[in-house]
Amino acid sequence: MSERVYNFSAGPSMLPVDVMTDAAAQILDYEGSGMSVMEMSHRSKPFEKIITEAEANLRTLMGIPDDYDVLFVQGGATLLFAMVPLNLMQNGKADYVVSGQWADKAQKEAAKFGDARVVASSKDSNYTFIPKPAADEYRKDADYVHITWNNTIYGTKWPVIPDTNGVTLVTDMSSSILSEKVDVSKFGLIYAGAQKNVGPAGVSIVIVRKDLVGHVRANTPTYLDFKIHADNGSLYNTPPAWCIYIAGEVFKSLLAKGGISAMEAINKRKAAKLYDYIDASRLYSAPAAKEDRSLMNVVFVTGNEELDKKFVAEAKAEGLVQLGGHRSIGGMRASIYNAMPEEGVDKLIAFMKDFESRNA
Amino acid sequence: MSERVYNFSAGPSMLPVDVMTDAAAQILDYEGSGMSVMEMSHRSKPFEKIITEAEANLRTLMGIPDDYDVLFVQGGATLLFAMVPLNLMQNGKADYVVSGQWADKAQKEAAKFGDARVVASSKDSNYTFIPKPAADEYRKDADYVHITWNNTIYGTKWPVIPDTNGVTLVTDMSSSILSEKVDVSKFGLIYAGAQKNVGPAGVSIVIVRKDLVGHVRANTPTYLDFKIHADNGSLYNTPPAWCIYIAGEVFKSLLAKGGISAMEAINKRKAAKLYDYIDASRLYSAPAAKEDRSLMNVVFVTGNEELDKKFVAEAKAEGLVQLGGHRSIGGMRASIYNAMPEEGVDKLIAFMKDFESRNA
Repeated sequence: MSERVYNFSAGPSMLPVDVMTDAAAQILDYEGSGMSVMEMSHRSKPFEKIITEAEANLRTLMGIPDDYDVLFVQGGATLLFAMVPLNLMQNGKADYVVSGQWADKAQKEAAKFGDARVVASSKDSNYTFIPKPAADEYRKDADYVHITWNNTIYGTKWPVIPDTNGVTLVTDMSSSILSEKVDVSKFGLIYAGAQKNVGPAGVSIVIVRKDLVGHVRANTPTYLDFKIHADNGSLYNTPPAWCIYIAGEVFKSLLAKGGISAMEAINKRKAAKLYDYIDASRLYSAPAAKEDRSLMNVVFVTGNEELDKKFVAEAKAEGLVQLGGHRSIGGMRASIYNAMPEEGVDKLIAFMKDFESRNA
Repeated sequence: MSERVYNFSAGPSMLPVDVMTDAAAQILDYEGSGMSVMEMSHRSKPFEKIITEAEANLRTLMGIPDDYDVLFVQGGATLLFAMVPLNLMQNGKADYVVSGQWADKAQKEAAKFGDARVVASSKDSNYTFIPKPAADEYRKDADYVHITWNNTIYGTKWPVIPDTNGVTLVTDMSSSILSEKVDVSKFGLIYAGAQKNVGPAGVSIVIVRKDLVGHVRANTPTYLDFKIHADNGSLYNTPPAWCIYIAGEVFKSLLAKGGISAMEAINKRKAAKLYDYIDASRLYSAPAAKEDRSLMNVVFVTGNEELDKKFVAEAKAEGLVQLGGHRSIGGMRASIYNAMPEEGVDKLIAFMKDFESRNA
């Protein structure tokens, strides 16, 4: 058996080792139930406890106010790109800030269902910064403003919550949820696929203010109605039970480690180390605007495509894997989510230094 | 740690012990990759191998012809109730045979998108039999006929593939897929949630004839278009990787055990034992019509609600769990999917005999 590697994948990516070790130990017999969580009726008492605790712990971690529903749904952010407009676009109008490919996909999907206006885009600059419209650029009568909090491909994130002129703010937080403190009450809806900071791919989290639930447009597929999930505690139909279980174990593990404040401090330290080294280096540079730098995805290049490839291949041989940039832009990307140990970042920097010295 | 129980849940339900034991052993390091399948990029080589082999093995097991696509999607049968009409209802007409609550839900969902006619229903008889329209009762110009192959709640299944007058046949096979040989070529589309015979909840299988793909109606959410999944090998967006991995291991395990023919023989023997005992007993009876009896879900009652409850409680104390009937009909239900060992059925029958002798 080989050793565990440092996995810098943008997602799915590393999960806490303690969580997986515990899950393995109980895989045939969860807490004396005589069965695996994978075999458990979603209407059984042990699973009811799992999903109830998962929600409660997520509420504690994020400080989610009581007037918000927390839903666990399937289909990833891709399905949520449609669910958001189908549930929220009551007047048929929404403003989208396009800060990357995923934001672009969200906007194009919403345009199927109404007037989904691009209020600003940084596409012409290869999405190297977050476009930040002034408050009065948003339409007062829009149903919502949609932003992508962290842009996984480009390594950018919103540095502050934008002023949207009173319009409901919706955000895709797939690649940064649980990595830093966020004032949930400033958002109407936050959604996130699990496979970066939460758990295994196959479940998404929706945090939605209750007054926004219950307005789905007519003849929408039942599964796409937030109210169905809210009214049934995410148990309208069989949920992705194993994914919710592991997510719940991740929440417990984060609470035991000091919650989001503790993670944010570590994440800032990890990211600062890496950016500081890149900024000081003569070989590497980070294309993202400094003020919009992501804590989770550190994108960098040597400026030479062949050298970038060599870097990725040599790093892999050292147990630093999945460092290639997104297939659409190339270069390198180190995704350093909550579960990436600080030692992984230290080892990466040491490798980068060594590589630089050999390729100056 | 307690012992493993015999879990007669209708789903999620038992999975093969060998599959889960192997998964536990590799949970931190899958085949020397240095990472868990839960942490693996869906675009990495190891995962590509997992999903490719899963599809190939499912094709072998079921004898799926080359002109069919095999898709792994999220959202369960509930989401498929909408995806089927959105993709297949080109003329806006479909005929539904309503043989239970799930068939009823499928029909009501389709009615959102077109003329989803109830061609026959056994609701007035509490769904104790499969209504079987004559071929000429189906509309020649319907886009498809929808049937529910096995009715989990009532313990019935179609004894033969119906003659639909040439109209494309679509079936929900969630609770019987892989339990008996089925001639896939007789169907336009077969779908199934994983959580009975396939793997953990969170993935569904769609087997669809290629000519039926690519006709989704305008402005359908992208995720609901079969073509998106077919064109991208079920990797348009991040798939429920762990669920697909376990499903793939179940397929390998079934092939090693002799494939579907071997399972069918065992399943027939398991079900026959149970039905034979019930038919001979003076305490128990099975409400389902004999010719329509399910091999997977054996529904039975004592005729006395209090006694039914006592049965379920006492069986649980003996490690025979989840024997209560569906909350909508009560009584007892023994779900005996592929992964239920024959010893579990023997132990259940022994308990039933003992209970009968004590409650004659």
